[in-house]
Amino acid sequence: MSLTSEQPAGIETERRPASETRRVTVATLEAMLDHPLPVLDHGFVRVADYMGDDSAIVEAARVSYGRGTRRRSEDAGLIRYLMRHRHTTPFEMCVIKFHVKLPIFVARQWIRHRMASVNEYSARYSILDREFYLPSPEHLAAQSATNRQGRAQTLGEAEAAFVLATLRADAERNHAHYLEMLNDPGEAGAQDATRLGLARELARMNLTLNTYTQWYWKADLHNLFHFLELRWDAQAQYEIRAYAERMLEIVAAWVPVAHQAFLDYRLNAAVFSAPMLAMLRRMLAGESVSQADSGLSKREFAELMAVLGQ
Amino acid sequence: MSLTSEQPAGIETERRPASETRRVTVATLEAMLDHPLPVLDHGFVRVADYMGDDSAIVEAARVSYGRGTRRRSEDAGLIRYLMRHRHTTPFEMCVIKFHVKLPIFVARQWIRHRMASVNEYSARYSILDREFYLPSPEHLAAQSATNRQGRAQTLGEAEAAFVLATLRADAERNHAHYLEMLNDPGEAGAQDATRLGLARELARMNLTLNTYTQWYWKADLHNLFHFLELRWDAQAQYEIRAYAERMLEIVAAWVPVAHQAFLDYRLNAAVFSAPMLAMLRRMLAGESVSQADSGLSKREFAELMAVLGQ
Amino acid sequence: MSLTSEQPAGIETERRPASETRRVTVATLEAMLDHPLPVLDHGFVRVADYMGDDSAIVEAARVSYGRGTRRRSEDAGLIRYLMRHRHTTPFEMCVIKFHVKLPIFVARQWIRHRMASVNEYSARYSILDREFYLPSPEHLAAQSATNRQGRAQTLGEAEAAFVLATLRADAERNHAHYLEMLNDPGEAGAQDATRLGLARELARMNLTLNTYTQWYWKADLHNLFHFLELRWDAQAQYEIRAYAERMLEIVAAWVPVAHQAFLDYRLNAAVFSAPMLAMLRRMLAGESVSQADSGLSKREFAELMAVLGQ
Amino acid sequence: MSLTSEQPAGIETERRPASETRRVTVATLEAMLDHPLPVLDHGFVRVADYMGDDSAIVEAARVSYGRGTRRRSEDAGLIRYLMRHRHTTPFEMCVIKFHVKLPIFVARQWIRHRMASVNEYSARYSILDREFYLPSPEHLAAQSATNRQGRAQTLGEAEAAFVLATLRADAERNHAHYLEMLNDPGEAGAQDATRLGLARELARMNLTLNTYTQWYWKADLHNLFHFLELRWDAQAQYEIRAYAERMLEIVAAWVPVAHQAFLDYRLNAAVFSAPMLAMLRRMLAGESVSQADSGLSKREFAELMAVLGQ
Repeated sequence: MSLTSEQPAGIETERRPASETRRVTVATLEAMLDHPLPVLDHGFVRVADYMGDDSAIVEAARVSYGRGTRRRSEDAGLIRYLMRHRHTTPFEMCVIKFHVKLPIFVARQWIRHRMASVNEYSARYSILDREFYLPSPEHLAAQSATNRQGRAQTLGEAEAAFVLATLRADAERNHAHYLEMLNDPGEAGAQDATRLGLARELARMNLTLNTYTQWYWKADLHNLFHFLELRWDAQAQYEIRAYAERMLEIVAAWVPVAHQAFLDYRLNAAVFSAPMLAMLRRMLAGESVSQADSGLSKREFAELMAVLGQ
Repeated sequence: MSLTSEQPAGIETERRPASETRRVTVATLEAMLDHPLPVLDHGFVRVADYMGDDSAIVEAARVSYGRGTRRRSEDAGLIRYLMRHRHTTPFEMCVIKFHVKLPIFVARQWIRHRMASVNEYSARYSILDREFYLPSPEHLAAQSATNRQGRAQTLGEAEAAFVLATLRADAERNHAHYLEMLNDPGEAGAQDATRLGLARELARMNLTLNTYTQWYWKADLHNLFHFLELRWDAQAQYEIRAYAERMLEIVAAWVPVAHQAFLDYRLNAAVFSAPMLAMLRRMLAGESVSQADSGLSKREFAELMAVLGQ
Repeated sequence: MSLTSEQPAGIETERRPASETRRVTVATLEAMLDHPLPVLDHGFVRVADYMGDDSAIVEAARVSYGRGTRRRSEDAGLIRYLMRHRHTTPFEMCVIKFHVKLPIFVARQWIRHRMASVNEYSARYSILDREFYLPSPEHLAAQSATNRQGRAQTLGEAEAAFVLATLRADAERNHAHYLEMLNDPGEAGAQDATRLGLARELARMNLTLNTYTQWYWKADLHNLFHFLELRWDAQAQYEIRAYAERMLEIVAAWVPVAHQAFLDYRLNAAVFSAPMLAMLRRMLAGESVSQADSGLSKREFAELMAVLGQ
Repeated sequence: MSLTSEQPAGIETERRPASETRRVTVATLEAMLDHPLPVLDHGFVRVADYMGDDSAIVEAARVSYGRGTRRRSEDAGLIRYLMRHRHTTPFEMCVIKFHVKLPIFVARQWIRHRMASVNEYSARYSILDREFYLPSPEHLAAQSATNRQGRAQTLGEAEAAFVLATLRADAERNHAHYLEMLNDPGEAGAQDATRLGLARELARMNLTLNTYTQWYWKADLHNLFHFLELRWDAQAQYEIRAYAERMLEIVAAWVPVAHQAFLDYRLNAAVFSAPMLAMLRRMLAGESVSQADSGLSKREFAELMAVLGQ
């Protein structure tokens, strides 16, 4: 398993020959198999395997609903009904396995999703490559003053240059020291015969959080949707959202009907709380409602107005 | 979705044509796809879909172990190492989906395994067929006097006949009353125009626990092994063990190397507690150890002697 | 563990004496501990243990948000913010354990919630009591013609009487045969010396699905809310909703702030899909929108109108 | 939430006063509540809350086994039986919540255990303190030549000094640059008015993996045992084992009977594979078995000999 930036190309050449199966197959997803989609400066998402398609969702729902619900023409309607009413178990019958290369600080957010299977490159066994995430200048942003977890405007040229130079120098120095503590000079040099070399499981602690790692990550479609709902969100950090966007494209190729239902009923839907609904009814009755007499907090009021396009 | 006993045959005729895929395929499992394996009197297990094979386990393990562990000749050894040291996550990369027809009292045990996905035939929506599990006479056994959850000797002919006649009559009567309360005469008769008919979600409560139901059940290989370890066990009730046995055959066809490792390190292995190990060392030193001075309970002592073939 | 209907009273007398703790305690919930709340004809829900309260949710959220978010006056606002934005992990820090007595067909729906811990009375080990759920006449309803999983109007007196007599007679006969197959005459009679008696794990299959069982069920507050959202719903079967209602009362006593947030942002909230939002914006702009030009299905249109009180 | 090393002391002074409860309480654990146990150089484990005790395990098991198994004198035997036969659900009825301070590279291993609840200090919201794990010299060890994931002998004095100086300098420099990029001079200085300051969610990527973080981590006893089995193991990295050891002490105080059963049947037990059992039977029959004719790999043979004290 190489961690070099040449890997994506390398993987492509290793593609398996086609073979016959009686399982459901998805032609558009087959075409994407083993083609890594680039993310950030050195990362990627690659579909490594999958099971099921839109028809598998329908098939699982129909066993629940039994006889008399077999009209094939209604498959899309059924999938949309399931999504709308959060009947989530039929979506669990579809499974996808990704191979992902990502910075460690992104991996730390990602792993919080527990309903998935993960095998990560282990720095106890192996040496991590000298690859770090360095944001492109347009993604170097200031701390938001209003949102404690968000970004605000982009940094100016001078400050961005300072930040990038600092990130790069620290990451490179720490990685060089990592190799030095390991007493592993790579191809370039010779070991220091007077030193034993520090154990890999210890030396790694000197690496910075923007160092790239890799893993296989497998989830069913229900849990993948949950992941995408949280990570595609505007509140999510840009760096993980960049992965979520690629994965959403993959989902569109894999299960197009479920994907559209997910957009309509989840990603682009809005939840109206009981107080919001009360206010909405007053507005529809022709009343002009201000925040002060809406019963909503300023933040909720502003959110609602934005959703309603007012 | 038909619940009649003709279903297995029916399913076979609906088989999908073969198509091309670049995913890993398992020829022996492809041949089993959509062929229901009969279990008990009316039940079956059918492989409906799968993802991965022995090589997917290896691939997931190698991303953890990184460079320098690529020797393909060592794949079987690696899988056995993973099984022996309970490195279970690589086994999660293989997934299988079964279609199962089973009595409700078996379904109630089965569903206790939480790490799986289930879509069951719903008796709120649909009417359950008139099919019940009736044990064959050799499985009609007396309550064990020593094991509060077990069976002892087979019933005599007269008692078995009495039991079977009772089980059959009660199940059939209750199902007939179920249809009558539904006011659903089936093809045979006419509805009673003076009655509304009881809601399906209520009428079902009159059915007996040996009525057959159906579901899709999807699990990854790690959780399937856990299921099989508990349900293939001699302590498990015969009726669920019968399903576990068919599923174990399917696993042997699907992932033969992992299957053999599972037999050697789990199903046919034994756990020796600290007190058992202490006793074993004394025995190997030539000492003759009795239960009284073994530090073990009578039951543990007996179990150990059995495992050791003493 | 007795399964007789006298149990609730019995349990009350076994209450533990008070002891000292430095854990957070909730006085109103302490008062409910070990007092079974009756549900249906023979069922109950009893709080057996708990951990955490509203302050535990805040405490968990504050470790995430770190310094500068300590203003105690804002606790309720923080809990409402977490609920609104589905930051669910802090709610997992509260845990509750219920002791529940419920009919088997309700237990079969309930167990579908996987993120919980369950220990159920085992009919492999023990004999189930002669207790069945028999709906009160106002809950005996006809099958809905429009909703394949719902109920419609209440049955007339004659039909209700027929249904109840049938349910009762079948349940009682099957239980009597169960004891007879077990060769367990209870206190009333004598065993038949010519029969071995059928194993308990087999005899139980003759019981009807309205037989009562019992279990301990433990869940964290996040998963309990998920359970309540699905089971308190108008679409849920009345018999499980009856349990959800009692549990919601318990939640109100345990974590009043989280409970109110749950009502406002989940139970009494509504999800507006992308097409619904588009239509809503047209309505707010003064346009009169019919179903035909709304882009919504008839069912979605009707649901939306109902939510909007139009 | 302070991340300074003064925190443990600070926490102690915030202890809640005692209050009354009817829940089960454990006096020895109450005495430990809110007393952080130090781990590594700046870390700690602190019990923040708990639910249940040994009696809760028994209570859950007895509902399964029903009537006739109430003899209180047999509680310890029952718990040992459950542990021996891996009847794990009763252990899920006990829950514990820890507050833990730990280096990020340890947190990355820990979080792989999915069946737990976590709220971690977020470096998107807040600034991480200048605290790093620096191993004490006796834990600075060389890479093992035989075990790709292990450590071998301790480094010599000169090499250890070099490693420590490098780890310390790199961590401190990177943290200073982190604050500088944030444009957050702390109490010591003044902000640079010409710079906006980088968003916290980005600046954190410059930190090293030995930086300390904190979280609440809640698990039930079954999953905690699983965690301890894997992380107390000799194969686990020392730094996480140090936490597992403190947690095992806490378990001993909390559920002493379950703790002893866990030692006897899990931590100090050994699994004998089918080939090992075959060999063992030959040894007990007096045969002298060499690795070559044992059917075991060299590694398995060596492990078995070690376990048997041969």
